[in-house]
Amino acid sequence: MAVLVVANKVDDTVAYCTMNEGIGKVLRFGAFNDEVVNRLHWMADVLGPTIAKAVKLTEEGINLNVIISKAITMGDEFHQRNIAASLLLMKELIPLINRVEMDADEKQSVIKFLADTDQFFLNVMMATSKSIVDYARKIQEGTIVTTLTRNGKDFGVRIAGMGDEWFTAPVNTPNGLYFTGFSEKDASPDIGDSAITETVGVGAMVTIAAPAVTRFVGSGGGYDDALAISDKLDEICILNNPNWSIPNWNFKGAPLGIDARKVVATGITPLINTGIAHREAGVGQVGAGTANAPLACFEKAILAYAKKLGIETE
Amino acid sequence: MAVLVVANKVDDTVAYCTMNEGIGKVLRFGAFNDEVVNRLHWMADVLGPTIAKAVKLTEEGINLNVIISKAITMGDEFHQRNIAASLLLMKELIPLINRVEMDADEKQSVIKFLADTDQFFLNVMMATSKSIVDYARKIQEGTIVTTLTRNGKDFGVRIAGMGDEWFTAPVNTPNGLYFTGFSEKDASPDIGDSAITETVGVGAMVTIAAPAVTRFVGSGGGYDDALAISDKLDEICILNNPNWSIPNWNFKGAPLGIDARKVVATGITPLINTGIAHREAGVGQVGAGTANAPLACFEKAILAYAKKLGIETE
Repeated sequence: MAVLVVANKVDDTVAYCTMNEGIGKVLRFGAFNDEVVNRLHWMADVLGPTIAKAVKLTEEGINLNVIISKAITMGDEFHQRNIAASLLLMKELIPLINRVEMDADEKQSVIKFLADTDQFFLNVMMATSKSIVDYARKIQEGTIVTTLTRNGKDFGVRIAGMGDEWFTAPVNTPNGLYFTGFSEKDASPDIGDSAITETVGVGAMVTIAAPAVTRFVGSGGGYDDALAISDKLDEICILNNPNWSIPNWNFKGAPLGIDARKVVATGITPLINTGIAHREAGVGQVGAGTANAPLACFEKAILAYAKKLGIETE
Repeated sequence: MAVLVVANKVDDTVAYCTMNEGIGKVLRFGAFNDEVVNRLHWMADVLGPTIAKAVKLTEEGINLNVIISKAITMGDEFHQRNIAASLLLMKELIPLINRVEMDADEKQSVIKFLADTDQFFLNVMMATSKSIVDYARKIQEGTIVTTLTRNGKDFGVRIAGMGDEWFTAPVNTPNGLYFTGFSEKDASPDIGDSAITETVGVGAMVTIAAPAVTRFVGSGGGYDDALAISDKLDEICILNNPNWSIPNWNFKGAPLGIDARKVVATGITPLINTGIAHREAGVGQVGAGTANAPLACFEKAILAYAKKLGIETE
């Protein structure tokens, strides 16, 4: 299986992610019919190798920080909405792909897929996020959250000071909107590793950058709701990332560094913008919404870190 | 010279525009050195015919209303900022261009130009706007503004009820930011027909959709300034266009239908987002900023229309 490779050159960490299949009937939401399997074969045999050849025509790869910086001014929050970043990446890739010697029909299929797959950048953002947190994980001190993830049963967090130890609690089921023919009774509890985007301060954290998403995930009516969500989530972060400046927020940067202590002190838990998977294997994505991380994971992490430092807790 | 053709299918009006050359040393800002002339030849001989062949591979052409509707949620205001719409148009064109039989180097030059020219959609928006106002011009009644334009000496307006008659007043010089090495002493008074975009309610009218532009045109610091500008300009329009809904404005549509009576009653004149040309021929674009339409044009138009209706004015 071909994977995306993202190198955090400054910090010397490298992360990987599969490529985005689009929405609906896709493996990552549990579908596995012929349409899904055939697409995965095509991605492994045609899409992946073509992108690899294209990127290797550059000396330095594609600068993802520049794409993210542009796209955060263009309505993307990088979890539910990646249309701008996907187009910006396409604009870098297509002139390179056009130079790759290959079968004309296969080239056309690659170009068409990249043009049509608005969520293609999501998985690029996931690998980018992983390359960032893997640097933070080297620090091994303090209470900054280094992973948020969920498996359909539990929500798990890690913090810098507790290394690889997981702190978990039962996961919530997303609130959201459903594709035609589906409803909340079909929903799996929150699942997937894409919450790595919220871990580095995008996704629901920067709803302010993407007020259009508020209607898609059912959380409200535009700018006012988006502002309220980001202002609230900003309270649990330690700073704002000047590389990802948001004009909609008077150029304030994306929140960066969720502090588990602030989560526990305020009771505000990270919100995740998420696709909703069907609860039964084989169906795939049935909607999109938001899910709150459970507070208990953060409480457990803080108590464990206090114990490690020899601080008494009752 | 190859031109863009935009058909307003519902209203049966057709409009034309030259293609955007990019920014800096370009003919439309007065530059005419070899770089400019060579590019124009290439646009006439290669770019134009390629786009024509690509569009003719479709049955219906490219649906521009859909592109505008998407791009207004992606930070474009369609006068100074067209990066999203240009990418969305590119995403429609590239799979078609890839099917055109042509010289490989020329195909690469077309793909590279479309990928690099963030303002390419501006001229598409201008022809789209012209196709809209040419329908409004058929009505021949009332005080809705059907043209805003300027020639470096005068600002001219037309209103529906006065047909083809122009009402003019001395044009202002833009306030704005200058490219390195230039300043306001180099600026031509406001010039060009691109204010057709503001005539249909985009450009400065929808600064709220594009708060990033506030810093580029020197009008301020983000969302709060953008909101103030659009709220003010909304006062001189009769309704909001539901096709061009703006998440940043809680999904309110772009202002539509500047009413010359409201302009005169409030003293609020249309604001134009504009490139700044050098005052001497041959130099080209030297900056970007905003310019207010002079009130006197609107006063003259209203007085003329009152006279036509036989209403006494003092």
